[in-house]
Amino acid sequence: MQPRVVIVGGGFAGLQAARSLKNKNVQITLIDKHNYHLFQPLLYQVATGGLSPGDIASPIRAVLSRQKNITIYQDEMVSVDGENREVIGHQRHYPYDYLIIAIGAKYAYFGHDGWRNHAPSLKTLQDALDMRSRILDAFERAELETDAAARKALMTFAIIGGGPTGVELAGAIGELAHATLKNNFRNINPAQVEILLLEAGPSILSGFPRKLSDKGKASLSRLGVTVRTHTRVTNITAEGISIQNDQGTQWVPCQTALWAAGVQGLKISEHLASAFGCERDRSGRLFTTPQLTAPGDDRVLFLGDMIHVKDAKGKVLPGIAPVAMQQGRYAGQYITNHMTQRDNEPFRYWNKGILAVIGRNAAVADLGTVRASGFMAWVIWAIIHIAYLIEFDNKILVMTQWAWNYFTRKRGARIISESVGSTSTDIGQTT
Amino acid sequence: MQPRVVIVGGGFAGLQAARSLKNKNVQITLIDKHNYHLFQPLLYQVATGGLSPGDIASPIRAVLSRQKNITIYQDEMVSVDGENREVIGHQRHYPYDYLIIAIGAKYAYFGHDGWRNHAPSLKTLQDALDMRSRILDAFERAELETDAAARKALMTFAIIGGGPTGVELAGAIGELAHATLKNNFRNINPAQVEILLLEAGPSILSGFPRKLSDKGKASLSRLGVTVRTHTRVTNITAEGISIQNDQGTQWVPCQTALWAAGVQGLKISEHLASAFGCERDRSGRLFTTPQLTAPGDDRVLFLGDMIHVKDAKGKVLPGIAPVAMQQGRYAGQYITNHMTQRDNEPFRYWNKGILAVIGRNAAVADLGTVRASGFMAWVIWAIIHIAYLIEFDNKILVMTQWAWNYFTRKRGARIISESVGSTSTDIGQTT
Repeated sequence: MQPRVVIVGGGFAGLQAARSLKNKNVQITLIDKHNYHLFQPLLYQVATGGLSPGDIASPIRAVLSRQKNITIYQDEMVSVDGENREVIGHQRHYPYDYLIIAIGAKYAYFGHDGWRNHAPSLKTLQDALDMRSRILDAFERAELETDAAARKALMTFAIIGGGPTGVELAGAIGELAHATLKNNFRNINPAQVEILLLEAGPSILSGFPRKLSDKGKASLSRLGVTVRTHTRVTNITAEGISIQNDQGTQWVPCQTALWAAGVQGLKISEHLASAFGCERDRSGRLFTTPQLTAPGDDRVLFLGDMIHVKDAKGKVLPGIAPVAMQQGRYAGQYITNHMTQRDNEPFRYWNKGILAVIGRNAAVADLGTVRASGFMAWVIWAIIHIAYLIEFDNKILVMTQWAWNYFTRKRGARIISESVGSTSTDIGQTT
Repeated sequence: MQPRVVIVGGGFAGLQAARSLKNKNVQITLIDKHNYHLFQPLLYQVATGGLSPGDIASPIRAVLSRQKNITIYQDEMVSVDGENREVIGHQRHYPYDYLIIAIGAKYAYFGHDGWRNHAPSLKTLQDALDMRSRILDAFERAELETDAAARKALMTFAIIGGGPTGVELAGAIGELAHATLKNNFRNINPAQVEILLLEAGPSILSGFPRKLSDKGKASLSRLGVTVRTHTRVTNITAEGISIQNDQGTQWVPCQTALWAAGVQGLKISEHLASAFGCERDRSGRLFTTPQLTAPGDDRVLFLGDMIHVKDAKGKVLPGIAPVAMQQGRYAGQYITNHMTQRDNEPFRYWNKGILAVIGRNAAVADLGTVRASGFMAWVIWAIIHIAYLIEFDNKILVMTQWAWNYFTRKRGARIISESVGSTSTDIGQTT
């Protein structure tokens, strides 16, 4: 009988693992709680109305439809029975000979889980739709508001965390306010928004060389974003945020706070850690062997941003798509080697560079030998992102959408989704 | 002071009314509970994964951004104070000199409101997303299901109502099953679905000439749709539907029933009827004067599918976009005439024809002198629909999307949205 490989999670790591086992003599089962693969690097575009969910989500079945040795189930992992080698799902049990788990992470609120309601983060498609509704709704409510202070709070946006996601969100909101929404309102001027990007450390984009980080800051300020470094957030409520720096503590009335500051393991990681004897770091991410396997079982691999792995220089690998994809391909190779009793070298990450986009036509790129900023970096960013969009039809469409957005400065997907429970009300008008 | 025109509802009627008052000496306020105008004729494409919500919804502010004499509020009408000439919204009061109400309708379940949960209908974007999730989810669950009878029920789709919407939905599901989902599953064959189109009357597409209605039926059967006329639905539960015809009553186990059978007025129509002394028809739609005004107030107009109006031959006008648009333009002209004390002729509908699309490249079209079916009708349908998409950027993108879908038979927007309340769970995988 062919060895059974079970892959949990259809993200970058899981999909690449599945693909790298394409012509191998194994029987693969992939389970994911969603029916789609999500292109997470562009999630902020959905959150700011630039792209539709369908542009960055491809049905996993469509992506893998030609791979004969794989069966896909939309199901959610509840637990793993490591002794009997079975993944327990809500719908079925999935027995395995090899197991790959790549279920991702979530944003960490550093012990303040109550902040999650007031400052949502961006990991799922639903998160992006909720964030989009919040951002657009703030402008709608400001147009209706007659009290000046309340209007000011509605037109204040705070983004917490100055990494690539925070920078990309702040830039996109700047562009929305200054370009896209121009002439759309009569009582407010969207260009008068205040957009705060708050970073506790000494600089934004801390993974980048200092020079690029400075250029990023300059690009942001051209989009009307105020960057405040050395600034910690000490409280978040529905009415605003408290921030603290050298000068003391300040209360900022603000209706829209967005969180982009650090990730942690999912709750099920605790169960996985005890089932397979893994240690976890402070953020709850699992430590694996250098081969990305569980310490107690060399047929179980963990991949992606749920694990804590270091590169050759001892630096923790970031939770980004290129790392996940390389780990996915490594996992496929690992299993092939293991089946034929060949040894596996430790996983090694080949760093091709990092990128962050800032608004419509600026970005920063550190590709090792090449460092770029401004428009050139934006072009590099656009080409790389389009090239990585997994399904071909999305590439063409997203490219058209982008070209159109670029030349018109429009954001077509500016839809405020209905709030939960409001769909069955029937007092008022319909579209 | 300029006369104040309040328009409630940003659908086809409301938008056209606003536009036809563009260079007039009036001050317009448009309120809608959504921030977007919805291109309802293509809603079935969203419901079946062919288009994304952003493709058929344009922000009302963007559509009207260049019209200086209009202010837009995202607000919901709660009631109207006819004596003091004020619309009461959730957020504000809107005083008017002229009032245009065009808030649409909803699907009628003929006294069986409990059926609404088991057989959703298609009026809003949220409806379309819910329907899309249901349809795709049925295939996902069938792939997981091991019991043959349960699997059969999951792979049975019943569409109730053989008008254009029912025909379009049935055709799109046929295509999804036979073309788009090909090779996507391992345990089921999507082409083995049973798609029932149920019509109580003697034929589907009853508004069309008999010959076209027959051609429509033939096109549907090529897509695997079984059309049953003279068939009434007598019960709908979560497990299936009861149908009745000459041969008696039959129980059809079925997990996905969709409703497309007749509309009725919204609940607020009762209030409007009593506020303005209107009679209502059996479906709750308002009777107006021949000038589309309230019998008791010639400065208040009702438009679109919330009213009951007849054409010159005494036939009730259908609730379709062309009727609404012509009424919108009429309303603008009416107000202009009224302001200058000129008389208004009764509203007259100029029927340019009716169209229904059946799958990827067939349709039926009755344009008066020209009658077409099959591919030619589909081309006519596509051109007309693209031409009417209100915002230009959508036209280009939807055209690209269609061209792509057409040649690849793919449906890119096949996303199963998260169910209500599931967004904060944290047991399983992400992406």
